[in-house]
Amino acid sequence: MLCAEIVAIGSELLTPDKTDTNSLWLTAALNEIGIEVKLKTTVGDDELRLEETIRDALSRSDIVITTGGLGPTEDDITRKVSAKALDRELVFKEELLEELRERFRAYGYEMPETNRSQAYVISGATILPNPNGSAVGMLVETDKKLLIVLPGPPREMKPMFRDHILPKLNETAPEIYVKRKTLKVSGMGESALDELIAPIYTAYKNPQTATLFNKTAIDIQLTAQGKTEEDADSLNQELAQKISEKLGVAVFSTIGEKMEEVVGKLLTQTGKTLSVAESCTGGLIGERLTNVSGSSKYFFEGAITYSNEAKTRALGVPKDLIDKHGAVSAEVAESMAVGMRERAKTDYAISVTGVAGPTGGTEEKPVGTVFVGYAVNSETRSLRLNLPGDRNLIRWRSSQAALDYLRRKILEAGDE
Amino acid sequence: MLCAEIVAIGSELLTPDKTDTNSLWLTAALNEIGIEVKLKTTVGDDELRLEETIRDALSRSDIVITTGGLGPTEDDITRKVSAKALDRELVFKEELLEELRERFRAYGYEMPETNRSQAYVISGATILPNPNGSAVGMLVETDKKLLIVLPGPPREMKPMFRDHILPKLNETAPEIYVKRKTLKVSGMGESALDELIAPIYTAYKNPQTATLFNKTAIDIQLTAQGKTEEDADSLNQELAQKISEKLGVAVFSTIGEKMEEVVGKLLTQTGKTLSVAESCTGGLIGERLTNVSGSSKYFFEGAITYSNEAKTRALGVPKDLIDKHGAVSAEVAESMAVGMRERAKTDYAISVTGVAGPTGGTEEKPVGTVFVGYAVNSETRSLRLNLPGDRNLIRWRSSQAALDYLRRKILEAGDE
Repeated sequence: MLCAEIVAIGSELLTPDKTDTNSLWLTAALNEIGIEVKLKTTVGDDELRLEETIRDALSRSDIVITTGGLGPTEDDITRKVSAKALDRELVFKEELLEELRERFRAYGYEMPETNRSQAYVISGATILPNPNGSAVGMLVETDKKLLIVLPGPPREMKPMFRDHILPKLNETAPEIYVKRKTLKVSGMGESALDELIAPIYTAYKNPQTATLFNKTAIDIQLTAQGKTEEDADSLNQELAQKISEKLGVAVFSTIGEKMEEVVGKLLTQTGKTLSVAESCTGGLIGERLTNVSGSSKYFFEGAITYSNEAKTRALGVPKDLIDKHGAVSAEVAESMAVGMRERAKTDYAISVTGVAGPTGGTEEKPVGTVFVGYAVNSETRSLRLNLPGDRNLIRWRSSQAALDYLRRKILEAGDE
Repeated sequence: MLCAEIVAIGSELLTPDKTDTNSLWLTAALNEIGIEVKLKTTVGDDELRLEETIRDALSRSDIVITTGGLGPTEDDITRKVSAKALDRELVFKEELLEELRERFRAYGYEMPETNRSQAYVISGATILPNPNGSAVGMLVETDKKLLIVLPGPPREMKPMFRDHILPKLNETAPEIYVKRKTLKVSGMGESALDELIAPIYTAYKNPQTATLFNKTAIDIQLTAQGKTEEDADSLNQELAQKISEKLGVAVFSTIGEKMEEVVGKLLTQTGKTLSVAESCTGGLIGERLTNVSGSSKYFFEGAITYSNEAKTRALGVPKDLIDKHGAVSAEVAESMAVGMRERAKTDYAISVTGVAGPTGGTEEKPVGTVFVGYAVNSETRSLRLNLPGDRNLIRWRSSQAALDYLRRKILEAGDE
């Protein structure tokens, strides 16, 4: 399998506000034809570092792609430095200068003298025309390595890559296709998960498996290589199947859906409706549910009952119950769910009440103590959680846990 | 001036969908104390490339910061490889293992054996505690160079850097201080804004000014350099003052606050209380308000009335009114706000009803048509908006507009 490195050039990419997005697009395009990106570098207008970066990249990878630094101004150094890194000269191309002059004339301008620098190319390079800008690209073949020099603006870089580089790489690249599949998991810790599934996935070199821990969800990412897309897909499918069997209901999506989309789909399939009563999540569950287009079919109403009075007034939670058990309690969570369900006349209601912090924790109920309530016609339940994290994360994890609880309940009901 | 390199580690960062955002935050933090970021590398779980990257970085830069790859699983290689790049050993710390065990116990779990790997640190490294996760960080000083090894999750990485690295770097006091100041603006387009303020900021070379368009908010970012922090701050302050005078109430924060924080502060200062009634935003306004710690003092209750029946039942919006004007109308927005305010017994209520799309638009009320309602004792108002963007953005912009409307109303009331 061929491997590539991407070098993004420009001091603006080393500021706090700019990130290199060209490399994401290039990665997708390269992956599709079976070329893996092994390393990405972002370097400023710094001749020594750029030269070292290009030399190192060529020494260890088959394909090196640079983006940016081909403009006409002083700090656009890619042309000069990439020639140096290859131990080649820059040569002046009269015909490029003519084209540049013509380009400016077409827009009614005289070419500024600074643009003259754009008529220099690396000796022996194939020139890649740029219909969308003044900087041509370059392709240099050396010792079975390829150096590809592209302009930075995406609307110049992308067509140049698509029209001139892809056909070239397709000639040399072996027929390997790379496909990814992601299993989304809830309700488990990362290491507990890994203990369960490592014996399965370590038996495979292809697909490769990575587990990514992200908020409460864990993504298990499978990356397979195959001689056809179908081959790669079926390799992923086989391993996904084994992992899914091991994890059971903890896998909530194998096609990249969010929890709220999975819950929405289950509600739609079963023709059921939902309302939510939120205290510490403050509207987050409603917000997540309604961010799914079409959610008005199953999600009718929510109550954000942040104060105790609101819990009593809006949801009929008895004041005595709050006084006796506290607003953060199993009893209040259940009462909120029951009250919400009655008010909204939905099949299901879920509720959340908890201590999101940073203040409000007690010895008995420290920050992170959260109760999820659940009500359906025949049953009222609650779940106590001790969630780690800051306020933001506790709130997010609470919303995920409430939605996951509902998901598991709907699945159970379906199994009966 | 000291220079730094940042190495982001993890194969997921070499996929088409993930980008390294830690480095942006680190760059801002480093710039502020006069340290320049000269190069950034993203490398996968690839031992040879990672070792070479760390060696190269240490050979040419004063400070090298790595993020990620410190988890307990097989593919988390940073610990091992960074030790190798320094020609040092990994040493096992019994006390770290005990802390890890204790950490798991506190959440009611037994520590999985895989986490044992997290008790190994580079010989001679200063251990950086991680209150937010199981992976400690490391600081290694060698030949006047610093290698700083941080975990990948931002909520673990950021406090560790702030609490343990910044004080250390501050000891090596630089001669130039870089300070940023951000003015946050609402209710204006980017070019209208620039036309107003360009004549002001173009007169300054220091601070430099950048306007960043982000959702409905526009950030005006000033970056000043000074011989002391105070010098840099006062340069920013002078220009910020001039721009603020020109823009007036459109500037909602000069100290980086979010809209919901500004609104919360105004409510606290004036001793007023708030409730919200949400249709198309589905809980987003409540979620944003309650994400501010201490919001329970002024935010009492919200209603997510997604269906028409819920609007009538929960808020007393007359069915006739909905039939006559439609659920997305000024009349219904106002009635929602009035009903919410009465139910929750708050000083203010705001409401939102709109077409977030992608479906549901009509010729008269296309996708993006949103009404914001506002009710206070003496006054009921509404505002019609035509918001561009996809579903997600329309919802976010609606929530911002509603909060901004309330903010302007509170300020007006204060001026009277």
